[in-house]
Amino acid sequence: MLNYIHSIPTQVFFGKGQISHLTGILGAYGKRVLLTYGGGSVKRIGLYDEVMKLLHDGGFEVTELSGIEPNPRIQSVEKGVLLCRQNRIDVILAVGGGSTIDCSKAIAAGVYYEGSDLWEMVRNARSLQKALPLVDILTLSATGSEYDSGAVITNLDTHEKLGRTFTYPAASICDPTYTFSVSAYQTAAGSADIMSHIFEGYFSETQDSCLSDGIAETVLKTVIRYCPIAIAKPDNYEARANLMSASSIACSGIPEYGKQRTGWPCHAMEHELSAYYDITHGVGLAILTPRWMRFILRKNPACAWRFAMLGRNVLGLTGEDEAGMAEQVVSAIENFFHTVGLPSSLRELKIGSEHFAEMAVHANQNERLSHAFVPLTTDDLTAIYHDCL
Amino acid sequence: MLNYIHSIPTQVFFGKGQISHLTGILGAYGKRVLLTYGGGSVKRIGLYDEVMKLLHDGGFEVTELSGIEPNPRIQSVEKGVLLCRQNRIDVILAVGGGSTIDCSKAIAAGVYYEGSDLWEMVRNARSLQKALPLVDILTLSATGSEYDSGAVITNLDTHEKLGRTFTYPAASICDPTYTFSVSAYQTAAGSADIMSHIFEGYFSETQDSCLSDGIAETVLKTVIRYCPIAIAKPDNYEARANLMSASSIACSGIPEYGKQRTGWPCHAMEHELSAYYDITHGVGLAILTPRWMRFILRKNPACAWRFAMLGRNVLGLTGEDEAGMAEQVVSAIENFFHTVGLPSSLRELKIGSEHFAEMAVHANQNERLSHAFVPLTTDDLTAIYHDCL
Repeated sequence: MLNYIHSIPTQVFFGKGQISHLTGILGAYGKRVLLTYGGGSVKRIGLYDEVMKLLHDGGFEVTELSGIEPNPRIQSVEKGVLLCRQNRIDVILAVGGGSTIDCSKAIAAGVYYEGSDLWEMVRNARSLQKALPLVDILTLSATGSEYDSGAVITNLDTHEKLGRTFTYPAASICDPTYTFSVSAYQTAAGSADIMSHIFEGYFSETQDSCLSDGIAETVLKTVIRYCPIAIAKPDNYEARANLMSASSIACSGIPEYGKQRTGWPCHAMEHELSAYYDITHGVGLAILTPRWMRFILRKNPACAWRFAMLGRNVLGLTGEDEAGMAEQVVSAIENFFHTVGLPSSLRELKIGSEHFAEMAVHANQNERLSHAFVPLTTDDLTAIYHDCL
Repeated sequence: MLNYIHSIPTQVFFGKGQISHLTGILGAYGKRVLLTYGGGSVKRIGLYDEVMKLLHDGGFEVTELSGIEPNPRIQSVEKGVLLCRQNRIDVILAVGGGSTIDCSKAIAAGVYYEGSDLWEMVRNARSLQKALPLVDILTLSATGSEYDSGAVITNLDTHEKLGRTFTYPAASICDPTYTFSVSAYQTAAGSADIMSHIFEGYFSETQDSCLSDGIAETVLKTVIRYCPIAIAKPDNYEARANLMSASSIACSGIPEYGKQRTGWPCHAMEHELSAYYDITHGVGLAILTPRWMRFILRKNPACAWRFAMLGRNVLGLTGEDEAGMAEQVVSAIENFFHTVGLPSSLRELKIGSEHFAEMAVHANQNERLSHAFVPLTTDDLTAIYHDCL
């Protein structure tokens, strides 16, 4: 196990009805709230009305920032920062999925940024020291943003989508019933995202991380078990609750305790797809992941041991032929994504090869993929994109 | 899954050499440090000298409280509180295992306690709001005190040993090399303690806690794998690191996310053994656990499903006969404790039955064992103690 330094300051309020704690949580920070949300879903499920009533009854002054995009844009961050400054906001309340929470994290930090260009702040987010307190109400099990300090912000003008760390939520209200109305497609995409968060750390050269690996395997087993149930029975509390808890634990850092930092190659590649084509993050990951797996197995067949480990501990495979098991594992994952209804090629999304070369350059600039489980060059990334067609 | 509210504010510095962060961590709180430790082991391994040199070079004013007992006494808490007040201590630095950290938690809270009787504070610890910052350097993988807010304090005069929540460590330095010198016996006892922390929450009526159960099973598998290695090769870093990480995760609350609160029956019973006979906590747990398991299987054979689940997922048992598998599970656990060198009866510790009846009354007063996985009466507890002879 490698050394690590870690803490998770976020307080989680998990379960049905935990919104009852909302005004108590917010009140500790002040009365002026920036309420951030995305499109219509929080209104459709009645959550917007419920939150507004609670805030009104609690005597909060509410400023709203709506329309935060699925791949949140730097322009939304700019709007939010301006609103916070104009209205002397005390605390941000993000109601939504990872995109809304991510955007709100960048806003929370941006309020204290002294420069004039917030995209520069995103690029250099490591130097940020301070942020407004952020509380969120989660409505999608996917990104884990409710339980980490990371956020991914997109600049469509420059075709950049950058993942950086900004601030942890002070509190996350995680009520699985808010995900009952999530579509089958988004449930599947969110599940692919959770699984990818695990794969990215699991596939690592570190061999003595028994505890972290076991926790990672548990998250995978949980998602593989409950994603199909949530799709078949959208209001199955057990399924939605386990997926929501898996989303948080996957990004908690715990499944990577003591492990090599890999640069998260599929995320690096997917961020380029989203930056160029604005696709759903989890869908891009579901397409990329099996291709990346096959590519690294070809490039370094010795890495099959990790796949075999996943096969034994997650899929119940047996035997000694690690190369054969690795193939079975990749096929099983590919098949899982197909079974839950996700696209299996970029062609299905009408994406061609015209930008692959520049996307590969960007992906390799943004993450140190020369330090990945199987190190990847820009040419490797281009090849993987082509395999996804 | 049941509702829960949870956060873990402790910052963990895990791995070899993390003591390099010590003065930076302490310095954030002030210069006046109460250094707490137990007997000779921190001096024997050179850690005391290393810490004192760092504190001296860093310009800290150090007050010492040494001799903290394996089952820390209220008298040590009283001494520590007095020293903190007399020396206007800014931060407590606990160097040792769970007992030293536990005692230091009670001291940290006791400094702000306005009453005159610190045992009353322990009894009513739930009402405590404030504590001095506490930093620890862990030297034993066992209690998980480095990653939770709990502490167990003993009053030998009244034969009471009470587990209460006081405060989380602000930071825990978890360097597995500090456990290289832990004896085989204490390594085994610490491992039994970690396993018991898992058993206490795992054996629960909650049936839809797939994620938490999987994490619990992972901790068990980790301890079962690495405890014998650490005993055979005391300086095996992989084994010591996985045990230390398992110790923290076992008590993190995460393995119990969404699960019924069970009252932790074996801990309730063991605290009485320690309060009356001052035995090693993990040894008491290793004796009690298989007897408690057999008792609840007799009392409510329908609870065998949970044992079978453990058998399948941790021990790799197969088959459909859940009652038979439950028996196999208990024997396997009993055998594991025996194999790693732990006593298997109270007689071996020269403990007779003379106090069983009153111990059972106390145990049932201190925890709500009528809400346990299989509810237990005072007579049941007495019977379990007798089974341990």
